[in-house]
Amino acid sequence: MIVEMSRGATRDQVDHVVERAHSFGFEVQLNLGIEKTVVAILGSDTGKVQTDVFAVLPGVESVIRVMKPYKLASREFHPRPSKINVSGVEVGGQRVVIMAGPCAVESEKQLMETAKAVKELGAAVVRGGAFKPRTSPFSFQGLEKDALKMLAKVKSDLGIPVITEVVDIQNIGLIAKHADILQVGARNMQNFALLKELSKVMHPILLKRGLSATVTEWLTAADYLLAEGNRRIILCERGVRTFEDSVRFSLDISSIAVVKHFSHLPIIVDPSHAAGHFAYVPSIAKAAIAAGADGLLIEVHPNPREALIDGLQSLNIPNFERLMAELRPIAEAVGRYI
Amino acid sequence: MIVEMSRGATRDQVDHVVERAHSFGFEVQLNLGIEKTVVAILGSDTGKVQTDVFAVLPGVESVIRVMKPYKLASREFHPRPSKINVSGVEVGGQRVVIMAGPCAVESEKQLMETAKAVKELGAAVVRGGAFKPRTSPFSFQGLEKDALKMLAKVKSDLGIPVITEVVDIQNIGLIAKHADILQVGARNMQNFALLKELSKVMHPILLKRGLSATVTEWLTAADYLLAEGNRRIILCERGVRTFEDSVRFSLDISSIAVVKHFSHLPIIVDPSHAAGHFAYVPSIAKAAIAAGADGLLIEVHPNPREALIDGLQSLNIPNFERLMAELRPIAEAVGRYI
Amino acid sequence: MIVEMSRGATRDQVDHVVERAHSFGFEVQLNLGIEKTVVAILGSDTGKVQTDVFAVLPGVESVIRVMKPYKLASREFHPRPSKINVSGVEVGGQRVVIMAGPCAVESEKQLMETAKAVKELGAAVVRGGAFKPRTSPFSFQGLEKDALKMLAKVKSDLGIPVITEVVDIQNIGLIAKHADILQVGARNMQNFALLKELSKVMHPILLKRGLSATVTEWLTAADYLLAEGNRRIILCERGVRTFEDSVRFSLDISSIAVVKHFSHLPIIVDPSHAAGHFAYVPSIAKAAIAAGADGLLIEVHPNPREALIDGLQSLNIPNFERLMAELRPIAEAVGRYI
Amino acid sequence: MIVEMSRGATRDQVDHVVERAHSFGFEVQLNLGIEKTVVAILGSDTGKVQTDVFAVLPGVESVIRVMKPYKLASREFHPRPSKINVSGVEVGGQRVVIMAGPCAVESEKQLMETAKAVKELGAAVVRGGAFKPRTSPFSFQGLEKDALKMLAKVKSDLGIPVITEVVDIQNIGLIAKHADILQVGARNMQNFALLKELSKVMHPILLKRGLSATVTEWLTAADYLLAEGNRRIILCERGVRTFEDSVRFSLDISSIAVVKHFSHLPIIVDPSHAAGHFAYVPSIAKAAIAAGADGLLIEVHPNPREALIDGLQSLNIPNFERLMAELRPIAEAVGRYI
Repeated sequence: MIVEMSRGATRDQVDHVVERAHSFGFEVQLNLGIEKTVVAILGSDTGKVQTDVFAVLPGVESVIRVMKPYKLASREFHPRPSKINVSGVEVGGQRVVIMAGPCAVESEKQLMETAKAVKELGAAVVRGGAFKPRTSPFSFQGLEKDALKMLAKVKSDLGIPVITEVVDIQNIGLIAKHADILQVGARNMQNFALLKELSKVMHPILLKRGLSATVTEWLTAADYLLAEGNRRIILCERGVRTFEDSVRFSLDISSIAVVKHFSHLPIIVDPSHAAGHFAYVPSIAKAAIAAGADGLLIEVHPNPREALIDGLQSLNIPNFERLMAELRPIAEAVGRYI
Repeated sequence: MIVEMSRGATRDQVDHVVERAHSFGFEVQLNLGIEKTVVAILGSDTGKVQTDVFAVLPGVESVIRVMKPYKLASREFHPRPSKINVSGVEVGGQRVVIMAGPCAVESEKQLMETAKAVKELGAAVVRGGAFKPRTSPFSFQGLEKDALKMLAKVKSDLGIPVITEVVDIQNIGLIAKHADILQVGARNMQNFALLKELSKVMHPILLKRGLSATVTEWLTAADYLLAEGNRRIILCERGVRTFEDSVRFSLDISSIAVVKHFSHLPIIVDPSHAAGHFAYVPSIAKAAIAAGADGLLIEVHPNPREALIDGLQSLNIPNFERLMAELRPIAEAVGRYI
Repeated sequence: MIVEMSRGATRDQVDHVVERAHSFGFEVQLNLGIEKTVVAILGSDTGKVQTDVFAVLPGVESVIRVMKPYKLASREFHPRPSKINVSGVEVGGQRVVIMAGPCAVESEKQLMETAKAVKELGAAVVRGGAFKPRTSPFSFQGLEKDALKMLAKVKSDLGIPVITEVVDIQNIGLIAKHADILQVGARNMQNFALLKELSKVMHPILLKRGLSATVTEWLTAADYLLAEGNRRIILCERGVRTFEDSVRFSLDISSIAVVKHFSHLPIIVDPSHAAGHFAYVPSIAKAAIAAGADGLLIEVHPNPREALIDGLQSLNIPNFERLMAELRPIAEAVGRYI
Repeated sequence: MIVEMSRGATRDQVDHVVERAHSFGFEVQLNLGIEKTVVAILGSDTGKVQTDVFAVLPGVESVIRVMKPYKLASREFHPRPSKINVSGVEVGGQRVVIMAGPCAVESEKQLMETAKAVKELGAAVVRGGAFKPRTSPFSFQGLEKDALKMLAKVKSDLGIPVITEVVDIQNIGLIAKHADILQVGARNMQNFALLKELSKVMHPILLKRGLSATVTEWLTAADYLLAEGNRRIILCERGVRTFEDSVRFSLDISSIAVVKHFSHLPIIVDPSHAAGHFAYVPSIAKAAIAAGADGLLIEVHPNPREALIDGLQSLNIPNFERLMAELRPIAEAVGRYI
C-alpha cells in the first residue's frame, strides 16, 4: 500500500503511519519528496488489510492499494491456468465447453427434448434452472425439487453432466446430490453466507459475475469459494449493468483477457442473459470464443414462444444448431475445438 | 403493455398476439397506423407478466411496459405515505429519524459508549453490525451472536430501538429476538430466498437499495417483503455504483423524490457507505434531509482510527455532535424536526 | 408515441392530448382500459417530436417513444447494409478493413516507418493523429499541420488512404485536403456544431461513439452527418464508460449486433482505446471480427516505449504482425477476409 | 507516481524506470520489498506526465498516480475558495446565486416575461439558450443571434446579468458582446478546441460537468479555461449518466463536497436537466443548497406546455415562486441567503 501524506504532515504523523504498519507486521519505506512524504507499506499480505486502517490517520491524504485484495484466485498464487474436471468434461482445456438448456426446467418432456438435442449438437453440459431467483414475487419460481429429479434423469439417461443454480443454503445438499455443477447467480455473487457454505462442498462451482461487480471484486468473491480447498471454480461473465438500453446487460468482452491475465481460473460466457434477445446471442457467442473464453452457457428452449421465463433470449433448436455450426470454425481459428 | 408490430407484420401475426393476451385475461385494443400496427394490452395485472411472452412472437418488433412490475409498494395500491412504528419511534412521520452507531459491534464498551453518546445527541435508533458481509474472506466477519447480546443490552439499558443486518436465513429468528429492525444489505437486495423468509417475520425491515438496482427493481424487491402482509418496510438509499471514483458509491439524491412519487414507503439515507469518507458525510446528510428523506443511517465510532471496519467513513462523537447541530435547522426548514 | 393517462384523467385531458397530436399532423387512437386510458400517437415522423410535448399536459402519467429518434441511419430508411468506398477501399463489404498506425504523428520517420510496416502486413488504411484532443492542457497537443503533410506524403508515396481526426471547424477544409477519412472523436460525438459543418463535406467520416452515448444517441448523431446527403459514414465502437477499472473503457461488444440490426451503416471497432493496454488488444480485436465488425482501428507504434501519447495501448510492429496472423483465420471463420 | 515492478523484474529494468524518471527531471526513491520493488517518482509536476510513459517499460506491473492531473483548479494551487464577480453578483460568496429562465429563448415576450418574474422572485441571473445543442438534427435549434439581442435587452432593461451557452468557436465573440456569463454545455466539456478559445476570453465561464466525466476530469477541463489567466470559472453539476432510468441524469450530490475539498472554484447545480421532470426539481434543488452548492441553474417557462424544448423539466412561474420560498429557509439553515 502507498500512503500519501498531505502537504505539511508532521514527522509525528508519519511515525504514526509507520507504527500502524509495523503493528500488522508490514515493512515500511519512506519517500521524502520535496512537497510530500510518501510511505510505501510492503508485505505479501497487505491485500488483506483495509486501506481505511491508514486512511483515517491524521496527516494522511490518500491510500492506494498496490496488491490485489484477492490471493487464491490470482496468477501469483497459481501461475498456470487451472483445468477443471467436471464428471469427465475438462473446463479450461483445449475444448470449448458448451453448456446449453432451458432457463427454467418446465417439464420432463421439455427438459429431455432439449437435453437430447443439445447433446447431439455438441453441448458438453446441460443447464436447467430448478430454483429461480425472480425479480418479482408474482413470477414463476421454478419447479424446485421436481426439476432436480428431472435433471438427475437427464444425467443418468444421457450420460451428460448437468448444472443448476443454488439460491439458498438450505438446498445446497439436495442440489449437490443431483447436479454436477452448482451455479451461483449474478445477484448472489456477494451473498457471502451462501459462498461460505458452498466453499465446504467439493462440487465444481460456477460463479457468475455480479451485475455491477468489478473483476477484482469477482475474483475476491472466488477467494471465498477457494478458501476451504475446493479448486474447481469456474467463472462466468454474463454482462454488467451500464446505461446502454438496447440490451439487458452489456457483456464485458474485455473481462476475458483481464481474468486470464490476473487469474488461473477458467472463464465462460453467458451471451443469453447479457443480450436479453436471441437475435444478438450468436454475435456475442462468437466474440466470446474468439476472445478466449473457455466455454459458453446458452439458453435453448424447444419452443421459446411458450417458455415460462426469458423466452426472448432463448434459442430454439434450429437456431442453436446453426450457432454451433458457426462456432466450430471460430474455435478452430483460435486453436481449440468444441 | 404496448406491442409494436414490425412493418409488414401479417394479420395472422397480429391475431396471435391478441390471442396470447386474451389467454392471460387481458383486454386488447388495436391501433392500425399507416406503417405499423400497435397492440395495446390492458389490464391491472399486466405488470406481473414478462414482456418476453409477447416479444418472442413472430412479427413483433418491441414490447414496452406501461404498468410498473411492482404493486404492493406502489402509491396506486396505497395512496398515502406509510408511517411505520418501530418500538415507539415513528418512521415516515414528521420526525426525521436518525439511526447511528458503529459499522460493526466490536466490544460491549465500544457499542455502549457509542449508543449512549448518539442517544443523548438525538439519535432515535442505534445501529450496530453483528453479522458482517465482507468482500474478502480474510476480513473481520463480525462478533455475530455476542454482538446481538450487546445490542439487546443497549436496547434494554438505554430504552432505544436497535437495528442490525441479517445476512442469512438461519439467523433470522435469532436476530429478530434481539433487534427491533432487521436490515437487508445492498448486496442482498435481490437475495430472493432471504426476502421470502423475511416476509414471514413481522418485524420492521430496512431494505437497502442494491448497488446497481433501479428504483423500479428496488420497489419490486420490496414487494417480496410486503407479500405476506408485513407492512413495516423502510427503504434505504445508500449510493449506487457509477464510474465516479472520488467516492465509494454515488448517492442517488433524486431517488428520494422518485420513491416518494411512486411509493408510499418511507425512505432513509445512508451517507456513510455512499461517501466512504467521513469528510463528505455531513454534506450528503444535509442534502438528504433537505430532499425529503425520512431519516438517516450514520456510522459513528468513538475512535475511528481503531475501527476494525470502515473507519474512514465513520464520524467520531464530536463530529456527530456537530452534524446533529447542523441537521436540526435543515429539518426545520423543511417543516420537520429531529 | 404512447401516452399513458393517469388514473382518473378527465375526458377533457384526453382531448387535449389528442388535439396536440393532431396539431403535429399525427394520427391518434384511443385505448380505453378499465383503469387507464392509453393514447397511441401514430405517424412516421413521431420520432422527431420530443416526448415532453405530451408529457407536460395535465392528466398525463408517462409518454413512451415507439419510433426511434433517428431516421436516415435506420434500416427502415435504407434496408440493405451500406458499403462505403474510401479511395478504392470498400468498408462494409466482405473485406475486414484494418486501419492502423500511431495514435499521434510524432515525426515523418515514425509515421512512414509505421505506415510501411502496417501496409505490408495487410492494413488497408493508415491512421495518425495530427490534432489531438487531450484531457490536460499541459499535454502534447499534436504536430497539427506538419502532421497533415506527413500523412499526405504517406498517402502519395505508399498509395494507401489515411484517416485523421478533426477537432474543430476551422481545420475541416485543411484536413479534408490531406486525408481520406475524417474522424470524429468520442468526446465530439455530440459536438453538434462540428457535425453540422462536417455534414457539408463529402468526405467519408468515421464517427466514434461517445463515452456514454447509447446506440440510439450514436445513430441520431449519425443523422446529423447524413442530413446533407453525405452517405459515407462509418461508425466506430471504442468502448464506453462503466464502473470497471481494469480497462480504460469497456468495449460494448453487443453494439455490433445491435447496430447491424437497426442501422445500415458499417461499424468498425477500436480495441486500443477501449483496452488502454496492449496486452488486451488482441483478445478484443479477435472478438470484434467474430462478432461481425467491418474493420478495426488499431494503434501501432514502432517503439511504444518512446511514444508521446498512449504508448501503453500501442502494439509494436512484431505484435501487430502476430495479431494480423491471428485475425485472418477468424475473418475466414465468419466468411470474410482481411 | 508509484511504479510497481512485477515479481522477478531485473535490476536493469528498475534502472530503466529510474532513468526515464530522471529524464523528466523527477526524483526517484526505491522501495525494495521482499517480493516486489516499488519505485516512487516524486516531483510537483508528475501530474502532467502520462502514466503510460512508465507503464510501457519492461518489468513494470502497474503505475499509479498520486498527484492529480489538474493544477490550476486545485486547492493546493489556490487554497482559499474563489469568489467570482459577475457584473456585480458574487458567485461563491455568502449569497446562493439563483440563475433562472427558459431553456431556449423562444420570443422576446416569453423571455422578458420570464426574466421579470424570476428577477422579482429573487433570481440573480437570467438564463436563456440562444444556440441549442440538440441530439437530433430535426429539432428546433434555437433563435441564435435574435435570441442574443433579446438577452441583451433583458440585461439592459432589467439590469440583471444574463448567461447563455456557447456551442462553437465562431460565435464566442458575438456571445461575449451580449452575455455576462458564457456557458459550456455538458457535451462540450471535453471539446478542447472550444475550451482553448474560451480561455482567451476574460468573461466569467460556467463549465458544466460532462455526462460521464469524473470530478478529476472536470477539474482538468477547468485547467484549460484557467490556463490563460481567466480566473472567473464556475463549475456546474448537472447530473451524470447511470443505469437509473427514472430520471434523465443522476445528480451527483456528493460532487459538491468533493469539489469543495479539492478545488477552490465555486460550484452550482442544475436540477432541471438532471431530473428531466419538473416534479423532482424542488427536492434536488433543496438538497443542492443544503449540500453547500453556491447556486442553482433552474429552467423556468411561463407556459411549459407550449415550450419548444424540454417543457417537462421547466417550472412554471407559480412553481418557481413556491420553490424560492422553500429554498430561503434552507439557505439560512446553512448560514447563507438567496
